[in-house]
Amino acid sequence: MDRPREACGVFGIHAADTDVARTAFFALYALQHRGQESAGIATSDGVSAALHKDMGLVAQVFTEESLGRLSGHLAIGQTRYSTTGSSHVRNAQPYLIETMHGPLGVGHNGNLTNAPELRRRLLEHGVGLTSSSDSEVITQMLAAPVNDGREQDPDWEARIDQFMQAADGAYSLVVLTRSAVYGARDPNGFRPLCIGDLPEGGHVLASESCALGTVGARYVREVGPGEIIRLDATSYHSISSNAAPRRGSLCVFEYVYFARPDSVLEGQTIHRVRQRLGEALAAEGPASADVVVGVPDSATPAAIGYATASGIPYTEGLTKNRYIGRTFIEPSDRLRRSGVHLKYNPLEANLDGKRVVLVDDSIVRGNTAGPLVALLREGGASEVHVRVSSPPVRHPCFMGIDMADSEQLIGYTNTVDEIRAHIGADSLYYLSQEGMMGAVAHEADSDGGHCNACFSGEYPLELDGYWEHRDKLAFQSAWSESE
Amino acid sequence: MDRPREACGVFGIHAADTDVARTAFFALYALQHRGQESAGIATSDGVSAALHKDMGLVAQVFTEESLGRLSGHLAIGQTRYSTTGSSHVRNAQPYLIETMHGPLGVGHNGNLTNAPELRRRLLEHGVGLTSSSDSEVITQMLAAPVNDGREQDPDWEARIDQFMQAADGAYSLVVLTRSAVYGARDPNGFRPLCIGDLPEGGHVLASESCALGTVGARYVREVGPGEIIRLDATSYHSISSNAAPRRGSLCVFEYVYFARPDSVLEGQTIHRVRQRLGEALAAEGPASADVVVGVPDSATPAAIGYATASGIPYTEGLTKNRYIGRTFIEPSDRLRRSGVHLKYNPLEANLDGKRVVLVDDSIVRGNTAGPLVALLREGGASEVHVRVSSPPVRHPCFMGIDMADSEQLIGYTNTVDEIRAHIGADSLYYLSQEGMMGAVAHEADSDGGHCNACFSGEYPLELDGYWEHRDKLAFQSAWSESE
Amino acid sequence: MDRPREACGVFGIHAADTDVARTAFFALYALQHRGQESAGIATSDGVSAALHKDMGLVAQVFTEESLGRLSGHLAIGQTRYSTTGSSHVRNAQPYLIETMHGPLGVGHNGNLTNAPELRRRLLEHGVGLTSSSDSEVITQMLAAPVNDGREQDPDWEARIDQFMQAADGAYSLVVLTRSAVYGARDPNGFRPLCIGDLPEGGHVLASESCALGTVGARYVREVGPGEIIRLDATSYHSISSNAAPRRGSLCVFEYVYFARPDSVLEGQTIHRVRQRLGEALAAEGPASADVVVGVPDSATPAAIGYATASGIPYTEGLTKNRYIGRTFIEPSDRLRRSGVHLKYNPLEANLDGKRVVLVDDSIVRGNTAGPLVALLREGGASEVHVRVSSPPVRHPCFMGIDMADSEQLIGYTNTVDEIRAHIGADSLYYLSQEGMMGAVAHEADSDGGHCNACFSGEYPLELDGYWEHRDKLAFQSAWSESE
Amino acid sequence: MDRPREACGVFGIHAADTDVARTAFFALYALQHRGQESAGIATSDGVSAALHKDMGLVAQVFTEESLGRLSGHLAIGQTRYSTTGSSHVRNAQPYLIETMHGPLGVGHNGNLTNAPELRRRLLEHGVGLTSSSDSEVITQMLAAPVNDGREQDPDWEARIDQFMQAADGAYSLVVLTRSAVYGARDPNGFRPLCIGDLPEGGHVLASESCALGTVGARYVREVGPGEIIRLDATSYHSISSNAAPRRGSLCVFEYVYFARPDSVLEGQTIHRVRQRLGEALAAEGPASADVVVGVPDSATPAAIGYATASGIPYTEGLTKNRYIGRTFIEPSDRLRRSGVHLKYNPLEANLDGKRVVLVDDSIVRGNTAGPLVALLREGGASEVHVRVSSPPVRHPCFMGIDMADSEQLIGYTNTVDEIRAHIGADSLYYLSQEGMMGAVAHEADSDGGHCNACFSGEYPLELDGYWEHRDKLAFQSAWSESE
Repeated sequence: MDRPREACGVFGIHAADTDVARTAFFALYALQHRGQESAGIATSDGVSAALHKDMGLVAQVFTEESLGRLSGHLAIGQTRYSTTGSSHVRNAQPYLIETMHGPLGVGHNGNLTNAPELRRRLLEHGVGLTSSSDSEVITQMLAAPVNDGREQDPDWEARIDQFMQAADGAYSLVVLTRSAVYGARDPNGFRPLCIGDLPEGGHVLASESCALGTVGARYVREVGPGEIIRLDATSYHSISSNAAPRRGSLCVFEYVYFARPDSVLEGQTIHRVRQRLGEALAAEGPASADVVVGVPDSATPAAIGYATASGIPYTEGLTKNRYIGRTFIEPSDRLRRSGVHLKYNPLEANLDGKRVVLVDDSIVRGNTAGPLVALLREGGASEVHVRVSSPPVRHPCFMGIDMADSEQLIGYTNTVDEIRAHIGADSLYYLSQEGMMGAVAHEADSDGGHCNACFSGEYPLELDGYWEHRDKLAFQSAWSESE
Repeated sequence: MDRPREACGVFGIHAADTDVARTAFFALYALQHRGQESAGIATSDGVSAALHKDMGLVAQVFTEESLGRLSGHLAIGQTRYSTTGSSHVRNAQPYLIETMHGPLGVGHNGNLTNAPELRRRLLEHGVGLTSSSDSEVITQMLAAPVNDGREQDPDWEARIDQFMQAADGAYSLVVLTRSAVYGARDPNGFRPLCIGDLPEGGHVLASESCALGTVGARYVREVGPGEIIRLDATSYHSISSNAAPRRGSLCVFEYVYFARPDSVLEGQTIHRVRQRLGEALAAEGPASADVVVGVPDSATPAAIGYATASGIPYTEGLTKNRYIGRTFIEPSDRLRRSGVHLKYNPLEANLDGKRVVLVDDSIVRGNTAGPLVALLREGGASEVHVRVSSPPVRHPCFMGIDMADSEQLIGYTNTVDEIRAHIGADSLYYLSQEGMMGAVAHEADSDGGHCNACFSGEYPLELDGYWEHRDKLAFQSAWSESE
Repeated sequence: MDRPREACGVFGIHAADTDVARTAFFALYALQHRGQESAGIATSDGVSAALHKDMGLVAQVFTEESLGRLSGHLAIGQTRYSTTGSSHVRNAQPYLIETMHGPLGVGHNGNLTNAPELRRRLLEHGVGLTSSSDSEVITQMLAAPVNDGREQDPDWEARIDQFMQAADGAYSLVVLTRSAVYGARDPNGFRPLCIGDLPEGGHVLASESCALGTVGARYVREVGPGEIIRLDATSYHSISSNAAPRRGSLCVFEYVYFARPDSVLEGQTIHRVRQRLGEALAAEGPASADVVVGVPDSATPAAIGYATASGIPYTEGLTKNRYIGRTFIEPSDRLRRSGVHLKYNPLEANLDGKRVVLVDDSIVRGNTAGPLVALLREGGASEVHVRVSSPPVRHPCFMGIDMADSEQLIGYTNTVDEIRAHIGADSLYYLSQEGMMGAVAHEADSDGGHCNACFSGEYPLELDGYWEHRDKLAFQSAWSESE
Repeated sequence: MDRPREACGVFGIHAADTDVARTAFFALYALQHRGQESAGIATSDGVSAALHKDMGLVAQVFTEESLGRLSGHLAIGQTRYSTTGSSHVRNAQPYLIETMHGPLGVGHNGNLTNAPELRRRLLEHGVGLTSSSDSEVITQMLAAPVNDGREQDPDWEARIDQFMQAADGAYSLVVLTRSAVYGARDPNGFRPLCIGDLPEGGHVLASESCALGTVGARYVREVGPGEIIRLDATSYHSISSNAAPRRGSLCVFEYVYFARPDSVLEGQTIHRVRQRLGEALAAEGPASADVVVGVPDSATPAAIGYATASGIPYTEGLTKNRYIGRTFIEPSDRLRRSGVHLKYNPLEANLDGKRVVLVDDSIVRGNTAGPLVALLREGGASEVHVRVSSPPVRHPCFMGIDMADSEQLIGYTNTVDEIRAHIGADSLYYLSQEGMMGAVAHEADSDGGHCNACFSGEYPLELDGYWEHRDKLAFQSAWSESE
């Protein structure tokens, strides 16, 4: 698919291990696909906290020197792609402050739909804010005492609960205090969060299970919707939030595109679910063709599934430049006309004279599919039949994936046949919503529902006033610091 | 003298001039001697604010690109040497936040003696703090509404006044809001602050008058102790704070060493006052000698004054490497033995066989005077008589100059004769307190007093509890961001 | 496979196009897999030359600003992984000098086996050398006049020919002079080099054809062994070198691992050849298994070929972290034990309880295969049968791929069964040399031979004295410049 | 004066001291005033060489890490301001190459007037050049064997001599080979170079004696015109060049402005010579005035001399911003009008109502004097009488100080009275040539002559063809590397 701006990955650890920062580093490395804009780790040794964060990929942000300063046995980490808040180190996470009861750090994956209201409350209370990040809002809200400030000791669980009762929207949080690490997931459970344990003792929290394997942790279970988890020296503890319970709404787009294929959600390996999506697609949208190719790398599992179910041989038809990084060099007009070649090239030997099924996982803006179809034809394909392993994306996401506004979504502005013509395919078929949900729910160990609002428009949350308020009271200052 | 860690310089401007940031840049450049650790400028165009700050000298922090982003007709700037708060970009100033009533920025020169108490109040109120800087404390305090929050429009003057009633210690502030620039000076008037106007319209505030000349502004007057100044489009307005009035306590060390020689305080050019200090020193501490030399560059005016009053010819006896920057290269032991040569060299032709009076402005830790005496002897001086144009520094400063703790002050731990022996001088004389105060007050247009606590131990403020509280509730987190 | 240190990619262009540097940038971007250590582009506008090069990936080395300074209608570019010469910007290419006849630039892919002898000749002639790079040797040799210096105009073709008569070993060159671009390939044709033309006029040279598609050029043909090509404003011209002709020796490892799958060598798409290697492997080394998986990404085509030929279903069994960059963070011992997880994770859903064929393209040092086998077992595989689509690598390469010395090659120090035991596979089969050469030669449009010395030990060149001289006269200085 | 672009400083050391690089660092630090554009150090441990150089001030170029890599007991260093060659790291020095006989490094202060001819010879010989620097020319010339290459061992002294016979112009060289350090000074002795010894054994070479004191070395003597010095483990050895002897021509501008006041040339401390220049100026150009002030810092010694001789009291009338660094921020037009204030401010208390003698050391382009006169008037001076302690600069320098071309020299294009009017002074007097030369020669221990061509136009060298050839064969490539 043409990439949405991606969400975030979070990680937390409580372990006697003397190098929790290093463990967090490798966990973030495994979660890099969830956010490439900034990365950070905060640690606590039970007395004081330390933080390092910066713009860039995980491997660029940290050095042995900066990791070395992050001592302690508690850590949280985050890797981020901006959903709200501009691209600036001020918006990088975790966010760390000093409170009456010591340091407090927060890493966040999601999007608060009532952030303007929460910002207003903080500002009215006289708390100045330094960024446009939801994360700062959450951290400052957690700094506010509960029970009219009469708490003797900081009751962090009550504070997290208080925040959850006030907040609307999607969030999976990791929270660092002087002596504990907490995780929390919104009552809808929009964004994933799971628990692992370390063979030598200690527990971890991670957005996706793929990070567990990387750091040698075993998968325990998911954090439930509306659940608060506290990690301490010996175990993990579950606390139920008093926030109103809601219908489970795990983001189906995590299955379709977002999560790493080796992660497990609701008991199912993502790769397997994507193969099933491809199988369902083959059943619904058959094609007379000689080969099945996928858009590398995200659509490869669905393409394999399509090939298996249809009996049409699978092969590779497009190569992808593995060394794509951020280049700020603009192609000239002449080069732009050869466009998608910068990233993909056709494999003529596998395409020449063939009728090709091109499997993609989704179409968002519709900028990529057309050039890919043209590339396949250039590589000699006699016919190109596009099959998409999800329905048309027709609605914006307010739960943490900044896909686009409606007008930018080709599935909102065009019929399927118009899209087919636009991308120049011989035929085009999108998997039905029923087909998608069937493949997703097939082996899920949860009986909860899912959020598929970007396809269906059925948002599991009230969004009244979201639009009106979104820009009001928004952050009106814009600044740059430290370069 | 051997340098104290220095304080800060602040600047503010309100002018229709379309490039107030550039003006602020050159003003900070002129105030560079007051702080070399970090620099920053915040601007407002009446709608939104912009900030750029970073570690380093003014000329290093700003580029045409970063200046270009600082649009508006209002600006404040700061250049800082840490007095409290560690050396980190988080502690760089100005500090800028979003409030209920738009952006709020603060630049600060001084030291709040009740900062721990003020921090505690903020933390209890639920405001998380991100740094150990007084500046953040001040900014968040200004964000708190007055009158129980019932103000319709932000009454910034009342908020600044409210802060001044709560704060103890030394501060000269510049404050930026969406549509105005404010200046304020503590009721003691410890740190200088003056007003200038621009020929083409507009007003400025600056720590020292030397910055006015640099940006083409005319000196108007000083901001008075306990006075709040508001700059608007056409003029400046004076508001009296309701903070308890106090006896004037302008820091006498600004005269002795700190301020630039071309600045004017209390109607007196600093250079002239330093010459008078040298004249008084010659009267009190005569010497039989052939030449008078000063420690370049700060003691040159006093040396000239000493020469004039004593009739002994003035000459230069030491050269100073003009290109001293921050080098992190450590001399080897062999080189260390030749120590002060890295910065100073003797001028043998002016010293050989001569009896020399070496004038210095002050002695703080006593590390520099000894090597300088040795250098003069190496250059051929037959006798070296050290004359200091201020009394022994015996007490720490809590008003914004981080000299040292008592035990590090050679004037606290040693008698004058011990110091003479320590530095290897043939004779040593310190100007008396009376002599110093007489030279300082001679032509002062203010009838206020001065703070000379570092010499006399008479602090113009209650410091009860300062010591006990200083480290309590202090910032217990330590972190690094964006490296 | 476990990666060898890789060779280099070169590019040349002569086009009225006003932005040849930009075209070269995107071509190098497409050749990034051939070298990730440094990149550079040199241009000429017919009067003077310009160069920009630095350490890093292509996208990191160039900015709009640096590209903008590279004006002209001629350009050469290079991206490098050090084969000889240490990792330093001094060894980055192209190498550009001033000669009697204007600027001269050289980009080089390969390894001169008589470089010490050529260095000696230059040093004896009084030419001081600034680096340990073959490229500087070549450039200074080209600067030496032919015919006893009596040439009126620079006869660059004769100079290139003179160099080729003196040089032994592997090289594909691009050469920039004030008014022409040349390409040349050693008489063995070890490293690839091809010609393309641009629809709007102009010609290009590139190490691999994949770069042609990226910049909108059409493939014309390969540069032949021992051939010199001159690009001018309207066409390309072929000149035969007087260097002794040799048997064709295109590197077979380009087919096995090195070249991009979408490149064409000897008329064959690399991806197709790799599929054939997989098919041959299935015929020679069958396995009783449930699924075929490849080591991503390089062994995927061979795995598909194996699956097709064997009838065993193809699937993905390992995921690879796409965001691997250069991290200098070392895993702790605890993390190291979970080792290869940093880069790969198993896909349990596709492995659990299955007998798995794992196809790899080659095994060099043998560090990677063992952990991958363990990962598959951890993912649930009941049996793991490793199949390698090339024979054991037993001999070092002196033609431009710095694999390792013999003692480091597991195929040199161990029998196949020892290797099987070492990597913990249930069975291990390497494709035979006959099988490999058959698959490689199957559709090749060239009747030339190939170099497979790393497998067979049969070097197509005399290497007498290479070992003795390699370190003699080698560069004994080591320095760092510009940080 | 308004600053000329400055020349260079060189340093060499041979000492058993294990940290010669550190010693070289501090020596370059002391020579920083001679060049602020780049700095570098090359070392040898008797086997191999190491080099670090970069753009920037000495303190910026070196870190503990880069110094640490510079091992050995031999070192040369250089700090440079470009006289020829553009501002680029390629032109930074020392220049280090590999030759038949090991590493060879060169640091250079001066300007070869026949550099184009020497470049031509090298290029004809087939040596490609990578920069426009004289230093590369010298190094490659030294690499050429003497005696038709029949030397068995490298005869570096003969090679240096051979170079000196071929070269015209100004040069003070330091040369590093594998096992020795050499110094050489052109037969005119245009640029200074002196020898020192270390108390603990070992010898050094330095452009100015001020660097000796800084590193704890004792002054031994100057290197003579046309002399070659070899430093070895125990001593220094003098070799006479066979280059044609010439009349001594030490640059008089070193006395007037260039050298540090604490350096000794021809047995005279520079500060003392400058005082004498001021005394002579007072005798020739008296003034009725109340105070004497100098342009800080370079004219301060002459102002003290003027005051002493005239009996008019000396004081400071201008302050200089000590923190001037490289700022790339351009003042706005409004600020530009207040111009010189960025660097200087007037001391009103010392000027108000006074008749002022302003002593400057020289006037080159005439851009600075006018604004300074205006500043003094702004500070209240009733009259300003400018006195210059050298004659008008009327001719360009070809011996290593890039002052300006004739048309840019205000002394060439204007009469003294026109200049007086231009700068707005009440009177203007330049010291006569006789007066200057008398003060310079007064105590000189050398009977050699001096070069005062920039004042007199009498060049001690044939410059035939310099102008015609200067641009011919010059470096026609322009490139940027590593950034």
